[in-house]
Formats: sequence, structure tokens, C-alpha cells
Amino acid sequence: MGQAVRPGEVRTEQPLRADAAVTFIGRVRTPWMHRADCPRQGDRRGGPECRIVLDPPWDAALAGIEAFETLEVLYWLNESRRDLLVQAPGHGGLRGTFALRSPVRPNPIGTAFVTLLRREGPVLVVRGLDCLDGTPLVDLKPDRCDHGSPR
Amino acid sequence: MGQAVRPGEVRTEQPLRADAAVTFIGRVRTPWMHRADCPRQGDRRGGPECRIVLDPPWDAALAGIEAFETLEVLYWLNESRRDLLVQAPGHGGLRGTFALRSPVRPNPIGTAFVTLLRREGPVLVVRGLDCLDGTPLVDLKPDRCDHGSPR
Repeated sequence: MGQAVRPGEVRTEQPLRADAAVTFIGRVRTPWMHRADCPRQGDRRGGPECRIVLDPPWDAALAGIEAFETLEVLYWLNESRRDLLVQAPGHGGLRGTFALRSPVRPNPIGTAFVTLLRREGPVLVVRGLDCLDGTPLVDLKPDRCDHGSPR
Repeated sequence: MGQAVRPGEVRTEQPLRADAAVTFIGRVRTPWMHRADCPRQGDRRGGPECRIVLDPPWDAALAGIEAFETLEVLYWLNESRRDLLVQAPGHGGLRGTFALRSPVRPNPIGTAFVTLLRREGPVLVVRGLDCLDGTPLVDLKPDRCDHGSPR
């Protein structure tokens, strides 16, 4: 977990139930090796090129993805604690976990919309990520607003 | 699972690894009791009122959420099969799973942006959902574009 609880923060003592299992389908490669290096929330479309690397057999599930300009990416923030109900964010005050986009949450799933620049086999080269290098990949889908994106 | 494989669809035989555990934090209540009743993808902001019901202790993590108009909701599509690499969507052709927003995917996590109408204790009344009644809730966060939404 690695993060201390700050004054005013509220933890749950209740153990997290394991209701379903997530399987990692690949990894995200970014220039950021430490959490303090990651850019803050915002439009990262002007940020550096990052790579989304699919593990087999899931690379076969990329067929047709080149048709989309914007992808929704889900990843697992595996370095975050999961037990905080109320947090003291850096910008001050106290706020419930669901009123924040902090990586500290019961299910530490980050979401981003990225611009797909190109595909190189099992690798997608994109702009728009802000997570740590090596972050496990959970899902990829076309943006719901993208032209021609069927359900 | 409950869904047959259609001609041309490709399954993986590889068992899904359990790399991380998801804990359900509540349930979504919608008017749709069967998958065939659910509206298709699109802007559901004009759709019916739905309810997001938080289980304890996670209701305590809603503090401050009333400040946000748009929330990102993540839920677990627990009736979907998870082993398809290539699918034959209803609108024709064959496409990789990650080039579709189908609920059939290795990690069946649905995402939606909803309008928050009001909070009633552990319940959020919203518009913008299209999933089955009783769908397990995985995460809730302010829209990254919402005014005053810090990370």
C-alpha cells in the first residue's frame, strides 16, 4: 500500500470481499517510473507517446481497432491502498473517495481517453495516458462518441 | 455465460488468470429486467431515472459528491461470457473484442457517464444508465471534465 493515512481521513476496517476476478490483458508503457512523476489530471492528448502492449491471446482481440481515433482505456492502479472512505486531497479539505478521482479507491481502476496514433502488431501507440510505467491493462474500447462505434 | 458462439467468432481456450479481485460496492437499479430490454448505446441522458445504491461502508465515501453534475460509473456485467477474441456483432461483420463496446470482454466492466439528479442518503438518483437491474457497482467518480473536479 505504501501511503500513510492523513489527519481526518477515514478507513474502513471491513475486509474487502473478492466478488469477481480481473485478468490483466497487457501493460501500459509510459515515461513515468515514480508516482510523483506522473502528470496530474487533465487533457493529456498533448503529452508524450505511450504504448499499450497486449499479451497473447488478447492481441487477437485488437482486430479492427485501427478504425477508431479515440479509445477508452481501463487499467489497474496496483500500488494504491483500497480502504479509504474519506480522503484529504492535496488541494485541501476532506472528501469522500467517490467525490475524487484519486487512485485510492476500493477498486483501483483508472480510466483514460486516448488518441490512437498507430498500431504496431500487439502494441498501440497512443497519447493521453498519465499512469505509471508498467501499469496493468484491464480493458480497451472505442469511445462511445466515436463515429461508427457500435455497441 | 448463456450466450452461444456465432459463426466466425473466435474463443480463447486459455483459462482466465485471476490477477486482482474486484469488490462490489453496491448495485444499480434500472427498469430493465432482461438483456433484450436494455437500450442500445447512445446518449441516455434523456432516459428514465435510475438509482445507484451504495452498500455500507461505501456510502460514507459519497461525501461531497453532490457538488458534481456528471459522474463516471463503472459496473460489472456479470452475465457476460469472457472468452471471445473476435465477435460477430448484430450489425454485421467480424471484429476484435476491443474494437467493440459489447459486454462480452475479458473483464466485463461497463462504463457510463450519468447526470446526478439528487442524493438520498446512500442512493444516487441519476439519468444515463442502460444496464440491467441489479448490475453490481464497481466504482463512481466525478467526470474529469466537471468543474472543480480535482484528481
